[in-house]
Amino acid sequence: MPRKPIIGVIGGGTTASPEGLALAEEVGFLIARADAVLICGGLNGVMSAAAKGAKRGGGLTVGVLPTGNKADANVHIDVPIATAMNTARNLIIVRTADALIAINGSFGTLSEMAHAFDQGKAVFALRTWPLDKAGVDDSLYVRVGTPREAVDRAIEYARNAIPKERSGPDFAP
Amino acid sequence: MPRKPIIGVIGGGTTASPEGLALAEEVGFLIARADAVLICGGLNGVMSAAAKGAKRGGGLTVGVLPTGNKADANVHIDVPIATAMNTARNLIIVRTADALIAINGSFGTLSEMAHAFDQGKAVFALRTWPLDKAGVDDSLYVRVGTPREAVDRAIEYARNAIPKERSGPDFAP
Amino acid sequence: MPRKPIIGVIGGGTTASPEGLALAEEVGFLIARADAVLICGGLNGVMSAAAKGAKRGGGLTVGVLPTGNKADANVHIDVPIATAMNTARNLIIVRTADALIAINGSFGTLSEMAHAFDQGKAVFALRTWPLDKAGVDDSLYVRVGTPREAVDRAIEYARNAIPKERSGPDFAP
Amino acid sequence: MPRKPIIGVIGGGTTASPEGLALAEEVGFLIARADAVLICGGLNGVMSAAAKGAKRGGGLTVGVLPTGNKADANVHIDVPIATAMNTARNLIIVRTADALIAINGSFGTLSEMAHAFDQGKAVFALRTWPLDKAGVDDSLYVRVGTPREAVDRAIEYARNAIPKERSGPDFAP
Repeated sequence: MPRKPIIGVIGGGTTASPEGLALAEEVGFLIARADAVLICGGLNGVMSAAAKGAKRGGGLTVGVLPTGNKADANVHIDVPIATAMNTARNLIIVRTADALIAINGSFGTLSEMAHAFDQGKAVFALRTWPLDKAGVDDSLYVRVGTPREAVDRAIEYARNAIPKERSGPDFAP
Repeated sequence: MPRKPIIGVIGGGTTASPEGLALAEEVGFLIARADAVLICGGLNGVMSAAAKGAKRGGGLTVGVLPTGNKADANVHIDVPIATAMNTARNLIIVRTADALIAINGSFGTLSEMAHAFDQGKAVFALRTWPLDKAGVDDSLYVRVGTPREAVDRAIEYARNAIPKERSGPDFAP
Repeated sequence: MPRKPIIGVIGGGTTASPEGLALAEEVGFLIARADAVLICGGLNGVMSAAAKGAKRGGGLTVGVLPTGNKADANVHIDVPIATAMNTARNLIIVRTADALIAINGSFGTLSEMAHAFDQGKAVFALRTWPLDKAGVDDSLYVRVGTPREAVDRAIEYARNAIPKERSGPDFAP
Repeated sequence: MPRKPIIGVIGGGTTASPEGLALAEEVGFLIARADAVLICGGLNGVMSAAAKGAKRGGGLTVGVLPTGNKADANVHIDVPIATAMNTARNLIIVRTADALIAINGSFGTLSEMAHAFDQGKAVFALRTWPLDKAGVDDSLYVRVGTPREAVDRAIEYARNAIPKERSGPDFAP
């Protein structure tokens, strides 16, 4: 059986708008309902709202923290990952997610979108940086209009990215 | 409600002995039975055996990979974390675990033990490097004799390390 | 005496244009002539051209590599830094540079610019991503027209960023 | 022409003894006299003493910092590398050095030695952790008695590790 899809939600911490937070919570809820795992930066704003939504939907939440202190994770995170690597943790979120949804966000989010593109991974963009205007191709920067569209498309994208068969090492003592 | 304890199992990949693998599987099983999350390096040997045991025990398994490819995770990993940071991922395992159990292992395991001590975190040592002989204090390097002793002591250690109350940011739109 | 300024040159590897490479070599030359240290990603394209220019100017070149193999550095690098952290090395370049000059470049360069902005650090932009069109403020994204303008402004920016007095620990046995 | 050897000096910060600091300064001096580059952690204690010695010897000093603030480097560092990756910077020092000399040191130094062994790289050990007693082979853990012996052997080891010809990409517009 393939593993569950892992959907990354990236976006503003202190800079998210009330609308952005509401979108993020709905996105998190729908990710959980799709039986996918939520991964995010583990802190406040969009990260906390998405995790809250995912918990309401009965899902699993992973927060990849910039600090080495798991107590920095928001209260909706099940599995805090303590990196102590500051914003280098952004790359771990991007690499680990099978698909990414961006909501609002400032330069940290911009960096995550750039790393995603650099890895050939699409970002589903919901009220965030208009990178199409800077020349990013619409196969990578995909504007979406609603949480439902964001999650449906991200899940479909993720399912295509996940190998049908597990290929890693097994263990047979 | 406090989050679940996260127990790290570190040890040999290709270098683990058949005995070490059997110990690791039992350790993983007992971690799951204690309702704790298993974190490991996600690859083969002790990492795979512990994850197999944890799945048999009904637990959740997190594998922090040195590569950027989640398909490198062993087949017992629920949540692969793709770091693409090579052995710098060792530090993420050590920081994220509330307590660590070491089984067999070569220099990678030795590095993880050193990082744990550096962070003031004990390692419960089951047939691994005899660091007491090199002068590491027995409050940090704790020899244990069985998987049961390793897991019981690690769980107790972890429970003491986890704050009773969540203190991270909440979200209330 | 304050330390020398460190100027980061970021830009395309395989994607740089012949014009971009010529600009990069001139930028590197002028950095060296200004008695500043060049830091870059250590590989090919803009990274190699800038380093070649800096050596022609008699300067010191540092290349922060994504791999763990120093032999991957281009032949103009004096000090290869082997990270084995893949694109997480981009952040080290951005943090270490006192000022950044971007020339051409694809998504890796875009990520470096985003990290610079996230750290409040300006990027002097020479034929690269038009991030002003995506809404980045012109105090951070600074369009320049020539290598001379890029280096003059970067050096001035760097000198303002470097403390006049060294404040780190000394050693007096 | 091959690049200069890069010799890493690792050891105690606040925990170094007066004897250890004096040894480190002499080691740094001899590294510079051998026309090699010194790399270290950039902070205090052994790191500062070795850098002071290298500057007295007319050498180049690189400090790979755990923080993102270059002003944290000791006053003898020419090129501070700001990682903001906490102790993950230890691995960068180990990977970048062609050979390593350890002097005194606590668990951070122990982690660096373990990472060196993991990479198949020898450590020349001067009054530091007695890892031979824990079973590390003497081809990797090499006890030395004096700064002169440490540096002579490290330089020889480094010269054998550096390719005679540069093989990285060139640039020819």
